[in-house]
Amino acid sequence: MIVQLVENISASQKQSVLNKIESVGYKTTEVKTQKGDYLVCIGKSDFDIREIGNMDGIQDVHVVSDSYQLVSKKWKAERTSIDCGDGVFIKEGDFAIMAGPCSIEGEDNIKRTIDFLVKQGVKFMRGGVYKPRSSPYSFRGMGMDGLKLWYKLAREAGLKIVTEVMQVSQVEPMYDYVDIYQVGARNSQNFNLLDELGKVDKAVMIKRGISGTIEELLFSAEYVFAGGNENLILCERGIRTFENASRNTLDLNAIPILKDKTHLPVVADPSHGIGIRKHVEAMSLASVMAGADGVIFEMHEQPEKAFSDGQQTLNEAEAASLIDKMRKTVALRESF
Amino acid sequence: MIVQLVENISASQKQSVLNKIESVGYKTTEVKTQKGDYLVCIGKSDFDIREIGNMDGIQDVHVVSDSYQLVSKKWKAERTSIDCGDGVFIKEGDFAIMAGPCSIEGEDNIKRTIDFLVKQGVKFMRGGVYKPRSSPYSFRGMGMDGLKLWYKLAREAGLKIVTEVMQVSQVEPMYDYVDIYQVGARNSQNFNLLDELGKVDKAVMIKRGISGTIEELLFSAEYVFAGGNENLILCERGIRTFENASRNTLDLNAIPILKDKTHLPVVADPSHGIGIRKHVEAMSLASVMAGADGVIFEMHEQPEKAFSDGQQTLNEAEAASLIDKMRKTVALRESF
Amino acid sequence: MIVQLVENISASQKQSVLNKIESVGYKTTEVKTQKGDYLVCIGKSDFDIREIGNMDGIQDVHVVSDSYQLVSKKWKAERTSIDCGDGVFIKEGDFAIMAGPCSIEGEDNIKRTIDFLVKQGVKFMRGGVYKPRSSPYSFRGMGMDGLKLWYKLAREAGLKIVTEVMQVSQVEPMYDYVDIYQVGARNSQNFNLLDELGKVDKAVMIKRGISGTIEELLFSAEYVFAGGNENLILCERGIRTFENASRNTLDLNAIPILKDKTHLPVVADPSHGIGIRKHVEAMSLASVMAGADGVIFEMHEQPEKAFSDGQQTLNEAEAASLIDKMRKTVALRESF
Amino acid sequence: MIVQLVENISASQKQSVLNKIESVGYKTTEVKTQKGDYLVCIGKSDFDIREIGNMDGIQDVHVVSDSYQLVSKKWKAERTSIDCGDGVFIKEGDFAIMAGPCSIEGEDNIKRTIDFLVKQGVKFMRGGVYKPRSSPYSFRGMGMDGLKLWYKLAREAGLKIVTEVMQVSQVEPMYDYVDIYQVGARNSQNFNLLDELGKVDKAVMIKRGISGTIEELLFSAEYVFAGGNENLILCERGIRTFENASRNTLDLNAIPILKDKTHLPVVADPSHGIGIRKHVEAMSLASVMAGADGVIFEMHEQPEKAFSDGQQTLNEAEAASLIDKMRKTVALRESF
Repeated sequence: MIVQLVENISASQKQSVLNKIESVGYKTTEVKTQKGDYLVCIGKSDFDIREIGNMDGIQDVHVVSDSYQLVSKKWKAERTSIDCGDGVFIKEGDFAIMAGPCSIEGEDNIKRTIDFLVKQGVKFMRGGVYKPRSSPYSFRGMGMDGLKLWYKLAREAGLKIVTEVMQVSQVEPMYDYVDIYQVGARNSQNFNLLDELGKVDKAVMIKRGISGTIEELLFSAEYVFAGGNENLILCERGIRTFENASRNTLDLNAIPILKDKTHLPVVADPSHGIGIRKHVEAMSLASVMAGADGVIFEMHEQPEKAFSDGQQTLNEAEAASLIDKMRKTVALRESF
Repeated sequence: MIVQLVENISASQKQSVLNKIESVGYKTTEVKTQKGDYLVCIGKSDFDIREIGNMDGIQDVHVVSDSYQLVSKKWKAERTSIDCGDGVFIKEGDFAIMAGPCSIEGEDNIKRTIDFLVKQGVKFMRGGVYKPRSSPYSFRGMGMDGLKLWYKLAREAGLKIVTEVMQVSQVEPMYDYVDIYQVGARNSQNFNLLDELGKVDKAVMIKRGISGTIEELLFSAEYVFAGGNENLILCERGIRTFENASRNTLDLNAIPILKDKTHLPVVADPSHGIGIRKHVEAMSLASVMAGADGVIFEMHEQPEKAFSDGQQTLNEAEAASLIDKMRKTVALRESF
Repeated sequence: MIVQLVENISASQKQSVLNKIESVGYKTTEVKTQKGDYLVCIGKSDFDIREIGNMDGIQDVHVVSDSYQLVSKKWKAERTSIDCGDGVFIKEGDFAIMAGPCSIEGEDNIKRTIDFLVKQGVKFMRGGVYKPRSSPYSFRGMGMDGLKLWYKLAREAGLKIVTEVMQVSQVEPMYDYVDIYQVGARNSQNFNLLDELGKVDKAVMIKRGISGTIEELLFSAEYVFAGGNENLILCERGIRTFENASRNTLDLNAIPILKDKTHLPVVADPSHGIGIRKHVEAMSLASVMAGADGVIFEMHEQPEKAFSDGQQTLNEAEAASLIDKMRKTVALRESF
Repeated sequence: MIVQLVENISASQKQSVLNKIESVGYKTTEVKTQKGDYLVCIGKSDFDIREIGNMDGIQDVHVVSDSYQLVSKKWKAERTSIDCGDGVFIKEGDFAIMAGPCSIEGEDNIKRTIDFLVKQGVKFMRGGVYKPRSSPYSFRGMGMDGLKLWYKLAREAGLKIVTEVMQVSQVEPMYDYVDIYQVGARNSQNFNLLDELGKVDKAVMIKRGISGTIEELLFSAEYVFAGGNENLILCERGIRTFENASRNTLDLNAIPILKDKTHLPVVADPSHGIGIRKHVEAMSLASVMAGADGVIFEMHEQPEKAFSDGQQTLNEAEAASLIDKMRKTVALRESF
């Protein structure tokens, strides 16, 4: 059960509400976000929710049968819109395209990508400055210096930055230089990191775990929301199965299922999903038709020379063609 | 290596060719289909294939690096077109829609479905008369009587029949009453059944195994082709993964990968793939954009009363809407 | 619900029972095996089962909450013992060792294996005469001629034969020459084959499907039992997962779970399970401790030269060592 | 390639070695642990390693074909022994039993468990003070206060503490109160945490990821080793598969495979692996026979009342019986 409080609830009103909820057998967690003040109440007892709904200081009460609560569509029918500033949104009806290199590689690479994206009218640039790598001997990214350089150039061009945060101690230093914090698949259940991201007011995009269930992804989002941050985006990026013909199995089934279960926007990552350059286009267009609110993909001026993930990275001509086809496909979808 | 022989090769010419191939260290299987006469040669030795290509009686020679041979796109660049008679084809550029109930339930059910499909301009009707069921106590289908009744009504209406064959002994009795034999996911590696279907000249649609790899599906098709029947269609119908939010995980990655590896047409089955009625539309449209040559889905005049699979079956209004949207999506795809 | 009838029930008594069962809302399937006459009743209505239990002609009535019925331990607490003739059993307390080559390769191979097994006191010899192969160009086994030769030699030595049956039409010709029909992983849900094996009175060992759930394996056994044959053995042989370091993932969890759910004996197949010769011993001994009633493994006088599966096949010294260690491990387990 | 340096190598000697390695085309990472000084050299060029082996300051040179290096058995044939102080080791030939509650629940719970373990001669007590939970509304552990209390009581009783560390910022505060830092399955690829644990000199036990491959587990260990800490233990705790009859699929195949690939000790966790109380014993004994160097399991004086994981937790009588049987099984294994 979610109890939404009015903005100016008095201390005594709140105490009465808490007493009432406790008296009917629920355990309560208070959640204060930038957008509202909620009581998330976990319990099983049957009682007439109007008894609470009619109390002073209550804006709304919702019974939510899902085990995740705040991210469920059962209490918030209206879809969440993520405001990234400067009139840039991620929301239903405003398809988000995010593109850029796997790793930020230096000034030339950044500038070249920005020029391309601006020309294409794309608003989000992706890129890694902290790279999770299986082997400790691999390139791990340019770090904060790369991020600051990238930020300066992207701001001048009016682009928004999407980049991965790997640990709690990076959240604060990165704050001034990112628009969307990305939580990678390997950190999808790094609960301390999720808690920490609940404290900031910038958007967070959570990737599904390598073998994460759809429900676990929703719970990861619930962590950030319960920590205080409602600006959440979910990302399907492929799961691990027995099939080895693709790098991962991009699970497009997750798109309509997530859109049905949560009010949060859902983005697809076909580059990591299928992991094969020549098939990224087909899977991107399929993601659109499956209902995605955006697509994030990897591109590079010379994929063969990219520091990482070259095998799944598009060149500029391929990226331009994909962007054009995605927009036409979105237009058809919107016409239905 | 595939050696394609000329139609009128003489016995002595063929013997020379066989001797030559053996002398360079290959093991040969002769494959005679309705369309051609091939020698499939398995081996590893290096030699100049022009030594064979220049012999009398040879139409063409292809080196195929895949472990499956006859179904590989590496020797047959032109895509296979399945001729179902009466001007009905399954081929690239002629998107195939197959619809109907999970199980054929009786005369009323057949007639109602036929009327709907004819009105929609759909050419293929699906339905089961032999049903594989996990439990021995479940309904197992109407059998040959149902098939004969269905055939009579479908022929009058000009519809083609797609239905599952479960065992070797059914192949011959069903022959006069089917247009496309469907091999179900549980029989995807029933090699005796595949061998037997190599002997008939009607189309065979092979579903991917419940946990079948893409390569195994190609090998299953290779069995039928090597048995003599080139009229093959592959069907992606969802694989088994850890995720339980969907019935299966419809693996759309398989569509572009299969289209890249084989010359055979590829069909998607979103009904079994995601297994959730309200999401069948999204996954069908995604299948189109992933590159499918057709979609097969379950529909029923009253899904709630269907003998089986009601939870993933569309009603007529939903089916009509889906058919319309699929055609528009195909048109957009063709325009790219 | 399972209603066990007395042996000499009269026609009118049986009709009364059937009427009664129908009147309380159950659907009934009659199952006659070599050992008994049962009514398997599927339904949900609540009523006092003593109303049936007290009728004439009833030996026993059991409510079974599992969806599979006849193979459930909920109605048959006593564990099933498989009588293979000549005083050879597969049952709890009489650990069964089954060994031999992947494929029967000829007279020398058979004789050599028999000599070894007799010397070791092993009672069951395994071997394939019909081999399911992914590729149509691979060796498919010696067929009936190989089986007849093997039978002659095995009988003289007092050994029991375990071999795979691949299709319905092989069941009858093989009957005189096998002691245990093995159903392979790819045929685990070949329901026609399971039905057919319900008609014979020889033991049937069903392997778990490549991605078969434990429940599906029990349903496959239910098919054979409902077809009339109670002589059933289940075999865990490894499932398909994302892990590629082993050929399959031998799922030893299945052993205690199956032993808890069913009264049938359970055998492990570590050769196919892990698929790595040097680790077959560890997994065999682990299978014993997990509670298996037997182990089936592949051995060959020269594994490097075996026609198939050489990479997971033990030589004679390794097999002898394994047999010795398994017996000591069984002895320890029995002492607990 | 791993180049092990002598303890007192001079700066100029080291520089010569580094120059030489670079000249043959390798990229070098220097790794200094409490036990030695290594150069891990990644590259592919062919050259005679004796050219390096004969230089001054070199203790040993090993070519390692695995992609992980320092944890590979290919350069360190001798098995690693973990010294936990006070004569307590984790090593081959000294089977480690680790037991205790899922979560540390308070003084009574700690004392009761300690009394039991001391009586049984068990040296390691497990328990969580920081609990990763899917839902943000679940109990997350007693934290540092619980750990300090536990430490005080455990030290008095001579027990070693095994407990999970969830994030970088906990490593230092926990240092004085733990004997073995446990990295949980969800943090198995939290590379920052692994880096941080490379800086401490206490043992680290890394659990395999929920869908982590065996190779990924070895790479996670490589991170800690390359960070400077050789005191590493690997733990198989079950992987995620399609099977739902068990909580996870305890993958015992991983035990012999890991023991073959690495010199590190390997422990099994049957409690989380199968997740069903009545089957923990069978899987523990199977783990022993598969070759595990230790078993970690959950126990509680009243499993029904445990704060978490009660469904897989043994009571004291069950734990005592398991410990006794494990020791007998280890004895048998050692006798082979």
